[in-house]
Amino acid sequence: MRETLAEWRPAVDEAIADLVPREIDADYLETFYGEATYEYDPDGIQRALADPLWELLDRGGKRWRAVLFLVFVEGFGEDPEEFLRYACIPEILHNGTIIVDDVEDEASMRRGGPALHHVFSQDVALNAGNALYFLPLKLLTAGQTDLPDDRRLAAYEMLMHELNRTHLGQGMDICWHNERDVRVTSDQFLEMCACKTGCLARIVARLAAIVTGQPENVEAAVAEYAELTAIAFQIGDDILDVENSLGRAGDFGKSFGNDIREGKKTLLVIHALEESPPEKATRLAEILAADGNTDDEILEALSIIEEAGSIEYAREQALELAADARAALDGLEFDDETDRKLREFTEFVIERDV
Amino acid sequence: MRETLAEWRPAVDEAIADLVPREIDADYLETFYGEATYEYDPDGIQRALADPLWELLDRGGKRWRAVLFLVFVEGFGEDPEEFLRYACIPEILHNGTIIVDDVEDEASMRRGGPALHHVFSQDVALNAGNALYFLPLKLLTAGQTDLPDDRRLAAYEMLMHELNRTHLGQGMDICWHNERDVRVTSDQFLEMCACKTGCLARIVARLAAIVTGQPENVEAAVAEYAELTAIAFQIGDDILDVENSLGRAGDFGKSFGNDIREGKKTLLVIHALEESPPEKATRLAEILAADGNTDDEILEALSIIEEAGSIEYAREQALELAADARAALDGLEFDDETDRKLREFTEFVIERDV
Repeated sequence: MRETLAEWRPAVDEAIADLVPREIDADYLETFYGEATYEYDPDGIQRALADPLWELLDRGGKRWRAVLFLVFVEGFGEDPEEFLRYACIPEILHNGTIIVDDVEDEASMRRGGPALHHVFSQDVALNAGNALYFLPLKLLTAGQTDLPDDRRLAAYEMLMHELNRTHLGQGMDICWHNERDVRVTSDQFLEMCACKTGCLARIVARLAAIVTGQPENVEAAVAEYAELTAIAFQIGDDILDVENSLGRAGDFGKSFGNDIREGKKTLLVIHALEESPPEKATRLAEILAADGNTDDEILEALSIIEEAGSIEYAREQALELAADARAALDGLEFDDETDRKLREFTEFVIERDV
Repeated sequence: MRETLAEWRPAVDEAIADLVPREIDADYLETFYGEATYEYDPDGIQRALADPLWELLDRGGKRWRAVLFLVFVEGFGEDPEEFLRYACIPEILHNGTIIVDDVEDEASMRRGGPALHHVFSQDVALNAGNALYFLPLKLLTAGQTDLPDDRRLAAYEMLMHELNRTHLGQGMDICWHNERDVRVTSDQFLEMCACKTGCLARIVARLAAIVTGQPENVEAAVAEYAELTAIAFQIGDDILDVENSLGRAGDFGKSFGNDIREGKKTLLVIHALEESPPEKATRLAEILAADGNTDDEILEALSIIEEAGSIEYAREQALELAADARAALDGLEFDDETDRKLREFTEFVIERDV
């Protein structure tokens, strides 16, 4: 395995370029998508698929989904170089969801540039995002891999399970976002994280287990590690937003009171609404429901959250999840090197830029 | 098999309601999506998934993809009632693509009502459309079906192949639509139809062959029938738009010169640009490239198309495709009843409202 995780990025990008070359030609289309009934238009597909994907990839991203996949593969005693192609599956899926999510959220920026639907037209961006949901799944077809049938079927079943739950999570998140009132419970919030963020992490872990032929209990254990880690980091993100806004943490480039302004139903907010005195809780709900907020109102909301002890509560939850995640791996007997890399991965993810 | 094709619609809708009930509850979620890690929010998922899907289904649509699937199943000597669940796969996929396409095309209307992103918010509509890409694919997982493994894997491979090409077709169409000049060849246009419309029809036919265990040559033959039929009807649609605008055909509820106004690169337009005298061709290209057109300009464009013999040319192409489609079935020895239904299906599709 390469010395540091970051060293994998060029190799991962090379593997992605094998699947979606920067320059599309008819040969690639015939080989990857199959013979045309009539005649492909490589120029159109260049602009519809390759240009949006590489615009997004070239802006950055740490490819940590691909790297975590490779860490697991090595931990299972296999050569990561031989499984590089499959590492692209969760990575490309992730980039597809980014493009689609940005349309759904009407995001203006992504990885330091305008969101893709502002660079390309919205129709091109959306279709590219959706195309990236199916493109990596083609890698598991007979013409693309020599994996045995049972592993290919297991991978498809796993992907269908996780990708369905991903859309449940996104659906819940969008619905709550569109509602003024906060009616969601802590457990429902955690479920949303488990589905929306956790399922893609589960795909990383389960795919590594499936393509290398691990037994079910190993697959379940790494899936749990990945899911709980993803939820912990989602909560960590929400804590950082509050702490940055209160001037307590370093500047992570986030705007002041972003989550409050968006009326986001975070674990901190849910806790503060439950634990604050009635008047304060009502005031916090008002600020969250308002269409616009002054900086003073943002500060007021942040103070209510702080006074309710919600930052400590959320931090405890995140730490507990991280500990549970590590505990999920306890029976697996990974080598020391893999253990070190899984710790390194944790740091890596904390410093992520997406 | 039920007496007329239309009689299948209630049965198909009932089968769809088994997959996505009109009223979502926790039991359904646990059964279909698997146990929650924490706790689902059935209300949120009701609004994010069931409401958009049933809003669209209740407005109409003939469910012809499901019905054609059942016709094939019966033609293969199996009981269609037993395969109703799988008939929902192409039908739900189709409804998912409708929702997403309407966002991409910024459509205002669908099946007599506002497009779904105008009824629900765009984020809800889009996520619902995407969720419907994966929901039906879950029917092929072990917990949902007792189909043997080889058929389930064959179905997944087939779906990944066809759904990838669907997005290629949509990508080409969008790209051409965003370009002012018409540079696309007839063969590229036909390829776009084969990918965008043909692949979903191929899914209908191939899935029927796969779940009933037909040999490869049968699957290939019905796929070709479905693909060519879909292309023929796409061209038929484009002819109708021109004929309606010229007052030659009945009113199909289409606006005057719709396709010209949108600058759509149809087979008729491609032919007219190639076959018209240079001055006329230049004028047609100008009108197509303009941001807005007067009714006189639309009429001028329609006349150039008519004078170039493009209507006859397109009709010949469509008839040839339809004949080729029927010829693809020649070796299959379907019973007379199935032959009658496949003819009936052709009429059914011509009268389609979507």
